[in-house]
This record gives sequence, structure tokens and C-alpha cells, in this order.
Amino acid sequence: MKAAVMTKPFEIELVELPVPPVGPDEVLVKVMAVGVCGSDLHYYEHGRIGPYVVKKPIILGHECAGVVVACGEKANRFAPGDRVAIEPGVTCGRCDACKQGRYNLCPDVQFLATPPVDGAFVQYIVHREDFLFPIPDHLSYEEAALNEPFSVGIHALKRAGFQPGQTVAIIGMGPVGLMAVAAAKSFGASRIIVSDVETNRMKAAEALGATDSVPAGDQAAAEIVRLTGGLGVDVALETAGHPRALKTALSSLCRGGKLAIVGLPPVDEVGFQVPFICDNEIDIYGIFRYANTYPQGIQFLSSGLLDIQTMITDRYPLEQTKEALERARTNKAGSLKVMVYPNPTA
Amino acid sequence: MKAAVMTKPFEIELVELPVPPVGPDEVLVKVMAVGVCGSDLHYYEHGRIGPYVVKKPIILGHECAGVVVACGEKANRFAPGDRVAIEPGVTCGRCDACKQGRYNLCPDVQFLATPPVDGAFVQYIVHREDFLFPIPDHLSYEEAALNEPFSVGIHALKRAGFQPGQTVAIIGMGPVGLMAVAAAKSFGASRIIVSDVETNRMKAAEALGATDSVPAGDQAAAEIVRLTGGLGVDVALETAGHPRALKTALSSLCRGGKLAIVGLPPVDEVGFQVPFICDNEIDIYGIFRYANTYPQGIQFLSSGLLDIQTMITDRYPLEQTKEALERARTNKAGSLKVMVYPNPTA
Amino acid sequence: MKAAVMTKPFEIELVELPVPPVGPDEVLVKVMAVGVCGSDLHYYEHGRIGPYVVKKPIILGHECAGVVVACGEKANRFAPGDRVAIEPGVTCGRCDACKQGRYNLCPDVQFLATPPVDGAFVQYIVHREDFLFPIPDHLSYEEAALNEPFSVGIHALKRAGFQPGQTVAIIGMGPVGLMAVAAAKSFGASRIIVSDVETNRMKAAEALGATDSVPAGDQAAAEIVRLTGGLGVDVALETAGHPRALKTALSSLCRGGKLAIVGLPPVDEVGFQVPFICDNEIDIYGIFRYANTYPQGIQFLSSGLLDIQTMITDRYPLEQTKEALERARTNKAGSLKVMVYPNPTA
Amino acid sequence: MKAAVMTKPFEIELVELPVPPVGPDEVLVKVMAVGVCGSDLHYYEHGRIGPYVVKKPIILGHECAGVVVACGEKANRFAPGDRVAIEPGVTCGRCDACKQGRYNLCPDVQFLATPPVDGAFVQYIVHREDFLFPIPDHLSYEEAALNEPFSVGIHALKRAGFQPGQTVAIIGMGPVGLMAVAAAKSFGASRIIVSDVETNRMKAAEALGATDSVPAGDQAAAEIVRLTGGLGVDVALETAGHPRALKTALSSLCRGGKLAIVGLPPVDEVGFQVPFICDNEIDIYGIFRYANTYPQGIQFLSSGLLDIQTMITDRYPLEQTKEALERARTNKAGSLKVMVYPNPTA
Repeated sequence: MKAAVMTKPFEIELVELPVPPVGPDEVLVKVMAVGVCGSDLHYYEHGRIGPYVVKKPIILGHECAGVVVACGEKANRFAPGDRVAIEPGVTCGRCDACKQGRYNLCPDVQFLATPPVDGAFVQYIVHREDFLFPIPDHLSYEEAALNEPFSVGIHALKRAGFQPGQTVAIIGMGPVGLMAVAAAKSFGASRIIVSDVETNRMKAAEALGATDSVPAGDQAAAEIVRLTGGLGVDVALETAGHPRALKTALSSLCRGGKLAIVGLPPVDEVGFQVPFICDNEIDIYGIFRYANTYPQGIQFLSSGLLDIQTMITDRYPLEQTKEALERARTNKAGSLKVMVYPNPTA
Repeated sequence: MKAAVMTKPFEIELVELPVPPVGPDEVLVKVMAVGVCGSDLHYYEHGRIGPYVVKKPIILGHECAGVVVACGEKANRFAPGDRVAIEPGVTCGRCDACKQGRYNLCPDVQFLATPPVDGAFVQYIVHREDFLFPIPDHLSYEEAALNEPFSVGIHALKRAGFQPGQTVAIIGMGPVGLMAVAAAKSFGASRIIVSDVETNRMKAAEALGATDSVPAGDQAAAEIVRLTGGLGVDVALETAGHPRALKTALSSLCRGGKLAIVGLPPVDEVGFQVPFICDNEIDIYGIFRYANTYPQGIQFLSSGLLDIQTMITDRYPLEQTKEALERARTNKAGSLKVMVYPNPTA
Repeated sequence: MKAAVMTKPFEIELVELPVPPVGPDEVLVKVMAVGVCGSDLHYYEHGRIGPYVVKKPIILGHECAGVVVACGEKANRFAPGDRVAIEPGVTCGRCDACKQGRYNLCPDVQFLATPPVDGAFVQYIVHREDFLFPIPDHLSYEEAALNEPFSVGIHALKRAGFQPGQTVAIIGMGPVGLMAVAAAKSFGASRIIVSDVETNRMKAAEALGATDSVPAGDQAAAEIVRLTGGLGVDVALETAGHPRALKTALSSLCRGGKLAIVGLPPVDEVGFQVPFICDNEIDIYGIFRYANTYPQGIQFLSSGLLDIQTMITDRYPLEQTKEALERARTNKAGSLKVMVYPNPTA
Repeated sequence: MKAAVMTKPFEIELVELPVPPVGPDEVLVKVMAVGVCGSDLHYYEHGRIGPYVVKKPIILGHECAGVVVACGEKANRFAPGDRVAIEPGVTCGRCDACKQGRYNLCPDVQFLATPPVDGAFVQYIVHREDFLFPIPDHLSYEEAALNEPFSVGIHALKRAGFQPGQTVAIIGMGPVGLMAVAAAKSFGASRIIVSDVETNRMKAAEALGATDSVPAGDQAAAEIVRLTGGLGVDVALETAGHPRALKTALSSLCRGGKLAIVGLPPVDEVGFQVPFICDNEIDIYGIFRYANTYPQGIQFLSSGLLDIQTMITDRYPLEQTKEALERARTNKAGSLKVMVYPNPTA
């Protein structure tokens, strides 16, 4: 089989690899669609993300879906031909975090495309069956692949206790922010106010359900508060990873409001207005990946409520994985989600 | 009746005032004990706290208890002679915050000793009956007055979802921090680790239930983590109002841990380590006063579990309110809670 | 002004009454639409509901909306001409239940059309301003009146912790059940399975968002479980007030499922399958009216998602209040919501 | 090694078995203390509990603690000599229930002494390392074995959202009820009211922390309500498995109160007062075993707060397992917990 291997930053090599053997509780999946994520780009450009360092050639890609080809002897949830979304993090199931239902905090997680674990820019992968989820016939593989960034938005809203009918501000309209808009729509938000520096990204957000757009900047929070009749939003999501965006998100909140921090800023410390947090009894939730979101996400993506196809702006075969990464890297204003197809669709 | 009126910063005048008339849903209370709070000191020194400015003479004091003297025509919860703790904030009961059970966020609250509302350094006050709470005979007035700062600790633990058997770090051993130690003990904490710059305050904390003391400083968080076997504490409370203390509190947490911010720092912005918050899915809760804590607090104070008398280090009659404030102001290392007694105890 | 007064069971008399005086915190509302509720019918037929006995002539009707005519001196939330939905229960704001955010459990509630409090089959009523809620121009008065039964469904789903994307079974397709279907749709339910003895009511449910209909009967639960792939639904609502319906609702649940009991059965005791409840760790929630639902309900009704007009099958002027009650009483299979209009619409 | 095998009801045979081999993620534990549970007795008397049928000889006993003897190659949490409490149910970690933190609902659980899985009346057992928990030196093995029934009480209180300072009624003072008293004390209950038919069991409850005893019977609920000043308790636990006890528990509750059903009644259906449940918005929680309780339970047992030794009334060596079972079976009024010691203590 073919795999797109990153040998060092900015270098992707198409190599021939043996199809991996299938363990007893594993399933072999023919990978049909893989989205390019910001973390893939970061490894591609810098060879590391914080403590995770690429020390040997690695296959990137972790937003993926495919079709079951073979099942391990104890893997009986699926049969060949089943179409599946792949949840990329395989957790131990035995630590305190796993047992308490917060498996995204499992210290022993094996996460696709996080060194030293290989990812999905490859024709076949094996994956533990309990992290595969069936998708309905009318959901395309590429839409199912979007369930990964979608899950981040779902998880953030759940952590923030978002209730149907509430208002939300989402700061940063990168792919995660855009999918969070779709999540907020699925959660029955009454008002989805988005903010970004790029007008076209806010337009894309409107196609996914945003009700209002506010240009990024020092006045953004005041404008969001104004749009909610002076109250502020119930929940704010920061997905930009930018100190000013974080300040906007926080300042947009109503009394008793809740902030979920999704984006990682490039600096270690960001200034928080503590008096505002205390006087208004703000809740702040750090967000790390997601847990227990896949079935819910597939349900939302399949419901017909969302026009999710608008997310996918660029498409490449596996052979052009480097082009896909370059496209995502260099066209941040224009490309939303760049998709790679490791196998030809029938 | 006599009242200790602050005419301007650093000036307290003992004046004769008429006993206030009792409204239909109000109760006249003979004030028996009033604790000196940090906010009283702040008004005494600076004439303001943030947006709350003392524009005319004001009576300070809001941590108080007393005995019912007369009841308004519609006030039927109490009878003369009933001993009561006074919850100082009277809320509207009709705004969204009140209706949702978060009445501490009521924008129309009338809070004792918060300008322009007079407080409790006075012989008699009227108060709406639903913010008075009966206390058992064996609980002294001065202990009942402590229910106010105690409530802050209880509320912070409740907001942080503290569970019996969990571990907690409490940073800052001023009166609020000390009472938070008592609250954590009442909540069945397995480990109560305290930190302060003053050794004698940490000793006081141990009398109230602290299990471990860690000197304040850059190494404090590491030491707290070490004490919990490398995991970090389940919940941390910042009560010092100090940027470094906030950093210590945050860094003391386990993965999935929860931070309640009680203390207001003297600056508008404090640096937060966002990657730590996200990677570990930390929850942060701003704390503003308390709600629905008074019966629970009285219950804990009456249970016999706590040696709460150790909190009260200094006692003054109403005539010496200025001395009481000066004592609290100038003996921060030595005095824990300074108490004023507006009426002689029988 | 005219009022439709029930002088004794089955007798409604149209009488002329003075327009009531407006208290300082009250608002005078010209009543524009009032729905007929099952409880109105029960008083009309039996003169009592459990402990609530009609001892003197009473005005029925509590599902209502109208337009502000005058405001008390302290009532500043509204101005004449404002269109409002009326939340019928006025609570004390001062008891433990109110302070904890569960004001529907306030023992001192004054609830429209619950003896001895008069209701809304009348041209003008006064109501405390904090239980009036503005409605947008495009929401009709009759739709706004439906916010009352809608609130019951919203509250039941909230009590049961219903999450967007979950599945729900709603047993009993009377007006409350039907409005619960609309609530479930607003909450983003993935599957709304309804059950009733009447086919046309299940058809009405489908117009409001039900995805599946199951005829009432001993096989209903098995069929609901089958429809969810053998798992059972996440949440079940019993709105029929019928022992068999309750059994169906309970048996429809998945492991860890949640049952909300909305309907009151005509008997004091109903048999519950305790081993099923324990083995599956079922949660059961009793539902009594609602709290904090009005803004959310108005939001949902105004969103354009719901075809709520289909609920209103019969319309009468105030003069024909008796006919309206008779219609609702005698045409249970055919009529969904019967509406009374105390004033002509412009 | 020796094992006490139940060959058929009422027959226990001491047999010699090979020490079981240790799997890679397993630990070999020398069993030091095993409590006799009601379920052991039920298998001993009837050869089945509901759908669980003893079809071949089985070793009973699942409340146990011991010392680590050997560790599998991948089992690195423990070392020989470590003293441990054994959580008897080993779950899959991969189903929805496990991933959501409710692993007690795992359909694939392997639970000691539940057919066909052998239990702990044996000298050595192997157990997956993640279901072993270290115990401090000062906690005896027999106390650690009590962590199993203790966990049921902890779990019930957690499910019912029990808060420190609240009041609780516990109906049924068998071992599970008694341990629930200890749990309520550990949770900081302000009032623990117990009820049973046996006076000596209520006395035992008082030794563990009960504050009030009410004889079982039709008047019990009224008396419990009277003891709480007419309000009713915040939380009630039914542990007797008796329809009347269930009615007592339900009727003891305050408005908004919560009932946890722990005991399984011998009949399929029990009558519930639905109007009471609805009017008071009661929550009812079915309880099935426990999850995530072991560390918390060990913490409570080790804290010095509980006089847990009073629970253990009878002690037998492994050779007398039959006598132990007979003692527990025939001395229900007198024996609290009967303990079996498979190995001599040093």
C-alpha cells in the first residue's frame, strides 16, 4: 500500500508499505478521506508541537473515515464493507481518567499522527474497533472525516453546559471555529455570533449557521455585547489561539457566562481580567480534544440540518499530500478544509 | 441607639441615631457581634472599592448576628428573642439571576456596608426576614457572625463541585482563606493543603483542619503537587488576591482539576498559563460572594466538628470600632478575626 | 370589562367587572389569547383538582398572552403597547425553593385559575411585571399563549438532562405531549418516538417533529426499543397520566435512561418495575409545572423551526368561553388546542 | 492452594486447586479477608439470583482484600508486598457505558462470585491490576474488604447528589444500609435517620454515625418528617428491598427530595405514589453496584472518622466458610458482617 510519509519538515515522500497486520481487537480500514488539520501543518512546518517531537519519519493525518476491510478475531462490531468514521485517539480504558468518562485525559492515549504514532495519510490503517463508528450511507467519507474537528466544538459546548436556545460567541473562524458554528447550530443555539479577521471566513460561518459576524479587533467584544441587547452571550468559545481573541471571548460574556478555551495561544501566558471573572462569576473551561462525541457528531452530520459540504474547499489524492499540506498552509484566508483521498472512490 | 459612622477615611464617629422603623416584611435585630472584614478596611482606608465609592457618611460592618427585637406585620418567620445570623445581601427575587438560583448575581442587591447601604456597626438594624437565619442556642453570636466569610468558602467549594474525600489547596490564609479551610473540613476533604507567607496563619489553619502547610513562593505549587504524590490537588482556592498566589493555585491542580478564584488581585490583568489550562482541561470559577449557604454554614458551625473560636483574636465594644479597624489594619500577621460587640451581652 | 366566570361546574357566566387596579410592581395586560387547558376542564367538570377546591365563582384560563396597557409606578420593564406572554404562576422570591432556582416549588405561588386565584378568561388582568415576557412581532398572541404548555415539555427535558442528538419517547399526545414533541425538536432530538391511542394525534405529532409513531398498548415499549436498534431511548416522557403509559415509558428506556413523569394518573399508586429501575440505573424525575422556561420557549417558538400553528384547532371569542370548554371536553380525539380570544384583534 | 467451592446449594467443599496463572496485566493476590454478602447467601440458598444461575461449582465471596504476591509482565502499578483492596467487577473499558464513566453498567463486566466467575473464598486470586487499590498500613484487610458494601452507599449518595450538611434517611439496616450510614457520615450529613425492624441493628447504626432511629412501620415516614421539623429529608436511601420500606423512603422526602433505590424487592412491581412524586418534583435513582468509588472509600475508611470495626461481628477461617455462611444466614438479627480469612495473618 501507499503512504505519504513526512521524512522531515516540509518533505513528504510517497512510499510503499506493507498493509499492517490486524490485532485481535482491531479492524483494518481502507482510508477514504482525510482532512488536513492545523496540527498536521504544525508538524509539517516545525517538526514538533510543544513536547511532541517528530524524531523519525511519520505519517500525518488524523481526521479520517473509511471502509472496513477485515476484522480481528475478537472484533465483532463490524463486518467488511461497513463504512466508518475513525476516532483517532485510542485510550487505555483503565486509568482514572478513562474510568471517570474523561478519556481524553488518558495519559496513555495513542493518537493518530501524534509522534510516535503514525496517522492516516495512507491507504490502510488498523484501529481498535471501539474507536470506529458506523456512518449512514448518505454521509460521505469526507463529511465523516469532518466529525473530528466537529467533535472539538461539540465537546467544548458540552463542557460549557450549553443549553438549546442559548446564545454563543465563537471567536476565530478557522476549521475548528467553523465546525463549532455547526455544532452550535446542532445544539439549537438561538444566536451564533462569530468573529474573525477574514471576511470570507465569516461568510463561510454564515453558511454553517452563524447569525451575526463581528470583525476581530478591540471593539469586537463591545459589539457582541451590543448584539445581545447589552447582556453578553451565555457561552463563548475561543478557537483562534490568540491572546486578543481570548480577551474578546471573555469580555463578550453575560453575568454567569461560560468561556471554553479551545485554541492554544503561541505564548505561555495570557492576561486574564480577574475582577471581571470574579464579579460576574464566569466559568472558564480548558478544552483538550473530546470524549464521547462521535455518535452524536455523526448524528448531527447526518441529520440534514447542516450544509457541511461547504467546508471542503480543496481535494487531493494521496500522491499529492504535500500539495494538500502546502495548499492548507499557504491559503489560510481562502481554503477552509483541505481533504486528501488515499484511495479512489468507486 | 449608637452607631459607629465612618465620616471619611480613617475617621469613625460614634453618633446617636433613632432606631430605624420596621417595614412590613422586615425584622428589627439587636446586633450582638460584627466581624471586621477586609472590605470594611478597604473602605476605611480608601473610601472606595472599585466602582463602589463612599460619597456620604456610612456605617461599615456586614458580618453580623443578633437577636430579634420586633417583627413587621407580615414578617412571621421570627419572634422577639430569636437568635439569628444575618445574611447581609438582600436581593430582589425577581431578576433572572434570582430566579435561576444565583441570587448573588442580582444587579439590585442591597448589601450591608456597601455604599450607599449602611452596615452593622450599630446597635439595631432592620433586615428583610428572609435573610435572617435562626441559630441554635449553643452557637455564639460571634461564631454566627463568622458564617459570612464561611459562606464564601462554602460557595467556592460548591461552585468547584468539591466532593467529600477530595483534596484541596487553599492559597492565602487571611480570614476568608481560614474559613475556607473550615469549609473544606466540613465538606469531608481528605487533604487540605494551605499556603501563606505567614507561618502563624498557617498554624491557625492547622487548628481549623489544614493537614499540610506550604510556605508561599515560587516552589509552593511544586511542593503541593509533591504532597499529593505527584498528581496535584482536585480543587484549588485562591483567596489571597495575589497574582503569584493565583499561579500557585493553578499549578497545584491535577489533570481535570478545578480552580476557584475568590481573592481580587490589585491589578486588572493576571497572566494565566493557557496551555496548562487546556492540556489538563482545568475548570476555573470566578467567585462573587455566595448564595444559599447560610443554613448549611450554620449547620457546620453548630456541628461540633470545627474549633471556630480560634478565629476570633480581638474583641472591641462598639465605642472602639475605630480601634477595632485599626487593629485589623495594622496587625495583619497576628490578628485573625477582629470582632465588634455593639451591645453588651447579658 | 367582560369576564367569563365559572359560577359552578358546567356553568360559565359572562359578567361585567371593573378593570382591576394596577399595583406598583404590576402591569395591566389586555388579554388577547387564552388556551384551554386540561386543568381548566377539570375544574369546569369537577369543581376541584385534588386539594384545590373551587369554593366561590372563579375565572379559569392560564395559558395566555396579551398587550401591555398600563404599568405600575415601579414597573419599568414594559411600556404600553408591548406584546407579552404571561407566565401564570407568581412566586414569592423569598422561600428556599425560590432562592434555589426551583420557584415552581414555591409554597406561596399565586397561579392563575388555581383557586382562589382568578385566571385569564377576561379582557384585562394585572400581573407582576417579572412574570411577563416580551414576544417578537412575528409571534402571534395565540402562539405565545402556547408557551405555557410548551414550558412543561421544556422543563421536563431539562430535568431529564436531555442532550441534543439524544433519542426520546413521548407517551401521550394530548396538548402537553404534543408541545413536548415541539420541545424535543427544539432541543435537537435525533429521534422523537410518540405513542397514543389516537392515530390523528400521532399524525399531529409528526407535523410538530415526531419521527416515529407507535400505537399505545402492551407492545408499545418493545416496539420503541426495536426502533432504537434494541437499545431503548435516552429519555422518556410520560404525559398521558395513565398507568400503562407510565409502564411503556419506563420500559422504553436504555440502560442509564431517564424518565420524566409529567402526567398525573387518576390513581394514587402505580406499579413500578423496581428491578428494571435498579439494574439499569434509571433516573425518574417528577415534573411539576416549570421554572425559567419562558424566554427559552419564546425563543424556540419564534425561531421558525416549529410549525406550531397546527396546534390550534378551534377558536372562540370570550362570549363563547363555555362553548370553547365544551368543545375541548367533548372532542378530545379531534381538537388539539382550543383558543379563546377575550378581545378582538385589531 | 485451598478454595471453598459451592458444589450445590447449601454445600461448601474445601478443595485443593492450583494457584492460577497471572496474565500480563494481572496481579496475583493472596486473599486475606472476605466478607459474606447477601448475594453470597442468596446463591448459597437458591443457586441463583434472577437471571444469574449457578450451573457448575462456584467459589463465592467478592468483598475482599489481600496482599500482592506477583505481578504480570505489563502490570506495573504494584509490587509484591503491597496491600490492596479488590474491586470485584472487572469491566471492558471499551463499551459506551465504560467510556462515559458509568462502568458499572458495562454489559461485559466480569464480577467475582457472579456465575460463571469464581470469587474470593480462596487463598489466591488473579485480578486485573486496575481494579486493585492500595490501602494504607493502618487499615486492616477486613476493613478494606468492607470497602465493597461501603462503595454501594457512596455511589448511592453520589447518584443522589448528596451535599455535605444535608439530611438523609436510610431505610433498612442490613450491612449495606449500615455501610451507607458510614458513607453519609463521611459525606458530612447533618442528620442521619435510620429505620429498621431490629432495634439492635439501629443501635449498630448509631455507632456508625446515625443520629436518629425510627422503628420500621407505617408511621416511620411521618416520624422521619417530624424529626426534620416537618420538612422531610433531602435524600432517602432504600436498602431493605422491601415494598413498605420503599414507601417509607419516598414519603420521608422533602419537596425536591431525592430517593436512591439500593435494595431489590422480592417482587417485580412496587406501588409508587406518583402524585407525590410529581407535586414535589422528586428524583428517583436506581442503584446498581458502583463506579469510581474505591479510592474515595479507602480514604474515608482510613480517615479515623469511622468506627468501622463494629461492623465485623463474626470471624472464620477459610476451612469454615460453610459455617460463616450459615452464621450469616441464620443470625440476621445479631450478626452484622461475617468475615472469612483464607490465609492466616502473620
